[in-house]
Amino acid sequence: MKILVVGLGALGTVFSCFLQKNGHNVSAVDTQEMVQKVQNKVVKVCGIWGKHSAQLKNIVSSPNELKNDFDLVILTVKSFHTEKALENLKGILKDKTRIILAQNGFGNYEKAQAYVKKENIIVSRIIFGAETINPGYSKVTVIADDVLIGSPENLIPLKELGNIANIINMSGIPCRASNEIMKFVWEKIIYNSALNSLGAILEVNYGKLAEMEDTQKIMNKIIEEIFNVLEAMGEKISWPNSEAYLEDFYSKLVPVTANHHASMLQDIQLGRHTEIDALNGAICSLGKKYNISTPVNWIITKLVKAKEKLVQK
Amino acid sequence: MKILVVGLGALGTVFSCFLQKNGHNVSAVDTQEMVQKVQNKVVKVCGIWGKHSAQLKNIVSSPNELKNDFDLVILTVKSFHTEKALENLKGILKDKTRIILAQNGFGNYEKAQAYVKKENIIVSRIIFGAETINPGYSKVTVIADDVLIGSPENLIPLKELGNIANIINMSGIPCRASNEIMKFVWEKIIYNSALNSLGAILEVNYGKLAEMEDTQKIMNKIIEEIFNVLEAMGEKISWPNSEAYLEDFYSKLVPVTANHHASMLQDIQLGRHTEIDALNGAICSLGKKYNISTPVNWIITKLVKAKEKLVQK
Repeated sequence: MKILVVGLGALGTVFSCFLQKNGHNVSAVDTQEMVQKVQNKVVKVCGIWGKHSAQLKNIVSSPNELKNDFDLVILTVKSFHTEKALENLKGILKDKTRIILAQNGFGNYEKAQAYVKKENIIVSRIIFGAETINPGYSKVTVIADDVLIGSPENLIPLKELGNIANIINMSGIPCRASNEIMKFVWEKIIYNSALNSLGAILEVNYGKLAEMEDTQKIMNKIIEEIFNVLEAMGEKISWPNSEAYLEDFYSKLVPVTANHHASMLQDIQLGRHTEIDALNGAICSLGKKYNISTPVNWIITKLVKAKEKLVQK
Repeated sequence: MKILVVGLGALGTVFSCFLQKNGHNVSAVDTQEMVQKVQNKVVKVCGIWGKHSAQLKNIVSSPNELKNDFDLVILTVKSFHTEKALENLKGILKDKTRIILAQNGFGNYEKAQAYVKKENIIVSRIIFGAETINPGYSKVTVIADDVLIGSPENLIPLKELGNIANIINMSGIPCRASNEIMKFVWEKIIYNSALNSLGAILEVNYGKLAEMEDTQKIMNKIIEEIFNVLEAMGEKISWPNSEAYLEDFYSKLVPVTANHHASMLQDIQLGRHTEIDALNGAICSLGKKYNISTPVNWIITKLVKAKEKLVQK
């Protein structure tokens, strides 16, 4: 399979290394600076899935340097770069090229439709963790569940999605196809909108947030508002309502990640943008659209953005 | 005049020193530990009003050690200690003893009524700043306006309040009486609920909060909610609505205190309780009472309380 990985961050490095190593023909796109830093086009992975390295077919700074014959594109840029990355891909997407959106949060599928027809868009839910050690060298630190891929409106035959999932899975990244991908995407959004954002504001780990009464009350409201929005959208997830979700949230979901610190806090401290607009920010936009009040997600969004700017100044 | 100052913190030290020095008979109450630390009952003040010292008549750890012949009590404990302090005073308040509440925020007048009849309660608005250098030794750092004193329901003749204001004023602390004291108390609450609380959460000065768009939007909402509550209460202040207030807030009120850091942040960092329950927390309670939605003040209250607890642990 001819595969293009867009973005050689922690995630893109893992995908490109594993897929190339498993006999596929993988090219990667990143900035000029990154292209120069990855020597001999060799990407490497270490961590819980062992040590791996692979020499990619191409690493370029512009997709236009490549032939337009890709079967699959994996977009691993951050959600706030989705549109720009897709704009740059315009010249090299074939009519049959499938594109996996590997971004966090809500809104990526919607944004992508301005550049790619819906029938080619695959949405993913990724909950393994990877961090960059050096440019093109990633460490896989943790995995909570298989990567899931799917077509939000089921416009791609499940058999074909299964084949793509199988290719990823065979390469060493646990993956399966789902015909209800948005359900799983939303479950990750809820979890992150409560813990990641508030953890970034208060600079404490997830366990602490779940332990203190005041932060519990804030997270309960964040989650309640999201369930209200989901109900208005007609979106169903594994829990029928926020009460049922909260029970599992405190008894099962948080305890296994109690020592985890918000990745958003690290983003802020490193002067990077966060993906707040695809999490609590997206809840507010959807709330407006469906006329659902989301004041707690609103203030959480503003506080994270204020913290971003305070560091960047 | 026989005066009892309750609490020898920064503020209590200033009041007791100036009033004693001006020929009044001043006693003070504080903890046993504080009583021992203030040597020879001498309290001192430095700062923008010059250097002063005075030997108080008494410094005791329990009001019951004193005779019940006070004309005036000045309560300078923090708002969250109002009730306990008044409980301790029960035995020594005469029928004619007036009591000045020198606490911040909303709710002190209401709480005091369980211990003192309304006709004896004087509410104050204090916007000079003082900090403790040593026990019984305070520095006056800044003054924005005279101390104002008044009876919220005008149950004390303005002439008598004028006499009390005059005594304080003559002692060296600028002071005047007002027949609309709650208006001024509310104006201070609005200012503090926006800047002090948010400054404590984000750990930046007032100027920064007013400069960034995201924090502006949060403060605008905090203030809007307070104006909604005030309207429901039928409480009038100098600005007819939040829009008019906000114009002055950004153009006049904040610029003069742009470099100011939230005193609430200092309280948190020193492991002390903050007065959040008398500020944004009081807005939420009043919102409930008058059926006005106050979600932004609610989350601000919770975040400050979470920060308090994170340091105390």
